[in-house]
Amino acid sequence: MSEFDFIRDQLSALSHGYPGALNLTDDAALLSCGPGEELVLTQDTLVCGVHFLENDPADLVAKKALRVNLSDLAAMGADPVAVMSSIAWPEVGGDALREAWVRGMAEDLDHFALPLIGGDTTVTPGPWTLTVTAIGKLPTGSVLMRSGAQAGDMVCVTGTIGDAGLGLKQLRGELSLSEAAAGHVTLRYQCPEPRLVLGAKLRGIAHAAIDVSDGLAADAAHIAQTSGVGLALNLADMPRSDASAEWLAGQGDLDTALAALASAGDDYELLVCLPAAAFDAAYMAALQSGTSLTPIGEVTDGSGVTLLGMTGQTVTIDTPGFTHF
Amino acid sequence: MSEFDFIRDQLSALSHGYPGALNLTDDAALLSCGPGEELVLTQDTLVCGVHFLENDPADLVAKKALRVNLSDLAAMGADPVAVMSSIAWPEVGGDALREAWVRGMAEDLDHFALPLIGGDTTVTPGPWTLTVTAIGKLPTGSVLMRSGAQAGDMVCVTGTIGDAGLGLKQLRGELSLSEAAAGHVTLRYQCPEPRLVLGAKLRGIAHAAIDVSDGLAADAAHIAQTSGVGLALNLADMPRSDASAEWLAGQGDLDTALAALASAGDDYELLVCLPAAAFDAAYMAALQSGTSLTPIGEVTDGSGVTLLGMTGQTVTIDTPGFTHF
Repeated sequence: MSEFDFIRDQLSALSHGYPGALNLTDDAALLSCGPGEELVLTQDTLVCGVHFLENDPADLVAKKALRVNLSDLAAMGADPVAVMSSIAWPEVGGDALREAWVRGMAEDLDHFALPLIGGDTTVTPGPWTLTVTAIGKLPTGSVLMRSGAQAGDMVCVTGTIGDAGLGLKQLRGELSLSEAAAGHVTLRYQCPEPRLVLGAKLRGIAHAAIDVSDGLAADAAHIAQTSGVGLALNLADMPRSDASAEWLAGQGDLDTALAALASAGDDYELLVCLPAAAFDAAYMAALQSGTSLTPIGEVTDGSGVTLLGMTGQTVTIDTPGFTHF
Repeated sequence: MSEFDFIRDQLSALSHGYPGALNLTDDAALLSCGPGEELVLTQDTLVCGVHFLENDPADLVAKKALRVNLSDLAAMGADPVAVMSSIAWPEVGGDALREAWVRGMAEDLDHFALPLIGGDTTVTPGPWTLTVTAIGKLPTGSVLMRSGAQAGDMVCVTGTIGDAGLGLKQLRGELSLSEAAAGHVTLRYQCPEPRLVLGAKLRGIAHAAIDVSDGLAADAAHIAQTSGVGLALNLADMPRSDASAEWLAGQGDLDTALAALASAGDDYELLVCLPAAAFDAAYMAALQSGTSLTPIGEVTDGSGVTLLGMTGQTVTIDTPGFTHF
C-alpha cells in the first residue's frame, strides 16, 4: 500500500464528506466560522514510550491522540468542529499498524461526530509520533481560560483523580491490582474521556478551567500562576474510583498515597474554579453530561497550590507533576 | 531550563502579542474570521533524517518546518494568519538546540509578520520531529485547488526546478559543485521560499495550483488525478538555475538529467494551471512578487503526466517523486 493509496483508500472516508476537507486531496482544508463565533485551536503530540506504551493497542493510541486534544477543547468550553492528524509512522508495524489506527480513529470520529479535514503522513526511524490538531468553536467572548480564577471560588474536579497514573504503573508491571481494578485504570490511561459536553455547559458559569494532564497539583499550579491566586486543595476530598480505593487500602501513609494520586498525570478530567452561587448549576450539568463534579478546595489570595492532608496539615510533594525537560 | 520556563521565557514572545494566543499560557488559542472569509488550515511534519539532515542548522530547520506549511497556504491562494508548532525534542541538543530553533522561528515569524498562537513541546527518544500547523484566510469561495485544471490550460511553474534535490545530494557529499552553486542549492534545500504573495494574487486567475514538494512530475500527477485531466510537460522548458545548469553540463544524457530534476522534491515552487488569457496577468504578478512564472506545458484531455524530452519524445521515469511508504 503506497502513501497515496493509504490516504485515498483509508483516510479520505474519515473526512465524513465535510466539504472543507476537500476529500483530503489538497494541500490544506477550509473552515469557516459563523457570525458571533470564535474558533478554538489546540495541538498536542504523543510519542511512543513517552505518552503511551509500545504495547498499547494502536486503535486506543489513535483515540488517545484525539481525546487529549478534545480534552483541551473541553477545558476552554469549546464545541469540537474538526480535527487534523499528522503521523510519523515507525519502521515496524507496517500496514497492520496503520489499519488499527484507522479503525480506532474511525470509531472515535463517529463517536464524537467529527470530520478529519487534513494533516500529514510520513515515516520516522524513531518511535511512532502522532500530532493531532483539534478545532472547536464557541460564542465570541465566552471562552474559559486558566486566568479567571478569583479568591473565594470553589475548586472542583470532574470524575476521579489518579486512575490513569495507576493504569500506567499497572501496565508497567509495578502494581498487582484485582482484575476489575486493573482493567479500569489501564483503560483510563489508554483511553481518556474528554469532558466536552460539560465543558461547553460551563461557559458563563465557571471562572477558570484546565484539564488535568500533567497531574492535579501541577495543573492547579498552572491556574494559580495564570490567575495570580492561590489554590488550597483537600486531599481527603479528592474523588477516587473503586480501583484507586483498592490501591489506597494497600498503602502505608495515606497522605503520601493521596499526594501521589494528585501528582499523577493523564487523567484528563476538568479542574474548574467557580463561584459558590454557580455550583448547583455546574453540579447538575456534570450529572447530565455523564460525569460528576466534586468540590476539593478553594481559591485564596496568595499564590501557588497548598495540598492539605487528612488532618488538615500541609502536604509537600517533590514533583507535583510531569515536565518534559 | 524547565519546559514551562522555556514556554514562558522563549516561546511566549513569539506570539507577538496576538490576543488569541493568550500568551501561550492556555490549553488552546482563539481565532476568528471576518464575514466573507474562510480559514485555510494545513499541517506538515518534518522528521530529522527524513525531511532534513542531522547537520542542517537548527535555525534553518525551524524555518523549513514553517515554510513548507506556508507553501501549502500559497498553493491554496491563502494569506497567512497564524501558526502553531508542536515539537518533539531529541535527547541530544539540549538548550542550545532549542535556542537555535527559537532564533530561526523568531526571525521567520518577523519576516512573515505572523504570530505563534499555540502548539506543544515534548521529548522523544527518537529523531527531532517538528509539526507546524499554518492557518491562512481568503475570501469565501476563492480558494485555489488541485482539482480545477482544464484541458487547454497552460501549465506554469515559479522559480527554478530541481535545485533543492541537488542541494540534498550536495549536502550528502554526492556532488562536487562550485562553491557558489553549492551554496545556492543547499540553501534551496534547507530554506525554501514559499510563494505566498504570488499565491494570493493567483486567486481568481489560476484554475489549479499545487506546491512542488514531492517533485515536479509527482505533483503534476496529483493535479492530473484530482482534476481528471492529463498534463504534458516539456523538460526543455523547465526553468533552471545557474547552479542546476552547472550540474547539467556535467551530465551524460540530457533528458535523463532533466527528468531527475523533475523528480526531485523540496522545491516548494508553485505549479499553476491557468487559461492562456490569464498568463500575462499571472506573469506580471510573479515578477511583482519577486519570482518568475515559466510556461512548461499544457493541460490535455486524458490522464497522467507526460514528460517530453529535448526532441519531443516521451521520457519515462521510474520514480516520479517521493512517497513515504
